Amino acid sequence: MIILVDMDNTLADFDKGLLENWQRLYPNEYFVPLEERREFHPHKDYPEHLQDKIYALCHSKGFIRNLPPMPGGVAAVKEMLSKGHDVRFCTSHLFEYDYCILEKYQWIEEYFGAPFVDRIILTRDKTLIRGDLLIDDKPEIVGIVKPSWEHIVYDRPHNRDVTDRRRLTWEKWRDVVFAGQ
Amino acid sequence: MIILVDMDNTLADFDKGLLENWQRLYPNEYFVPLEERREFHPHKDYPEHLQDKIYALCHSKGFIRNLPPMPGGVAAVKEMLSKGHDVRFCTSHLFEYDYCILEKYQWIEEYFGAPFVDRIILTRDKTLIRGDLLIDDKPEIVGIVKPSWEHIVYDRPHNRDVTDRRRLTWEKWRDVVFAGQ
Repeated sequence: MIILVDMDNTLADFDKGLLENWQRLYPNEYFVPLEERREFHPHKDYPEHLQDKIYALCHSKGFIRNLPPMPGGVAAVKEMLSKGHDVRFCTSHLFEYDYCILEKYQWIEEYFGAPFVDRIILTRDKTLIRGDLLIDDKPEIVGIVKPSWEHIVYDRPHNRDVTDRRRLTWEKWRDVVFAGQ
Repeated sequence: MIILVDMDNTLADFDKGLLENWQRLYPNEYFVPLEERREFHPHKDYPEHLQDKIYALCHSKGFIRNLPPMPGGVAAVKEMLSKGHDVRFCTSHLFEYDYCILEKYQWIEEYFGAPFVDRIILTRDKTLIRGDLLIDDKPEIVGIVKPSWEHIVYDRPHNRDVTDRRRLTWEKWRDVVFAGQ
């Protein structure tokens, strides 16, 4: 199988990194606890007067580079590869690309090693990428063609209302990915 | 149709940019005239004692950012879009990614405008990208799957020995791209 794996909030804990940075920079400011995240784009979970600050933080230098990995994600990808599957990191740039694209490459190099950088596919339209599975926390993944992959929802608080697709976490992924094999 | 278009030596004149920089930096040094380029990777056309210098120049800060566009390429892409086709920039990072990936985004923004950045697909394996045509100067494009696209060779001196595929230049592309339509 070709297994496409998203980065933000699937392999890299975007929400946790954002909350930690937010509380460090603005310790007395309102914040949304991780379990209460509801919108795909984190700034939309915040009151309007804070949205620009959250947005700016997500796009700031070093933010993507320093995201903590989701526990078990790196090991899961390596296990898929060891079982003969092909894994590609299938990721999109944020609203602005200045820091995030380079930092996504650096992040993969840090947590997987330099050869894995060649497995990155950066695209805003994931339907154009061929694969059997796409593991991604985004609730609706649309593009210009009908995808070849099955979308498996990476379980996060913001996507718990999605009930029409299979879901996984890195704590319990083998039964989903290797189902029927 | 979905038309994938390569960047280096297809939309951006990598060879011309390289030669101009090389002659500016090392005016008395040996150089390979544009028409005598034979290898896909330019440093391999140079004698061994100069290869590291050429390689370093290709990977230096600002090199990709400042490549001149191939005459007619930007207009060709815009015409394809205006005729209802979908065009994506399908490009790979160089051997090192430090400057080139960000600069490829900046280059597209400069010559096409900010919205076109969303049309970039960065991948080392172009066979994983779905499309009807891939316009690319690289002689052999291989990957883990059989491509969905037809490879149309963008004509450059280094790929003149490729005779088993259709070819085009931006001076004469409509007959090739729109053949049979």
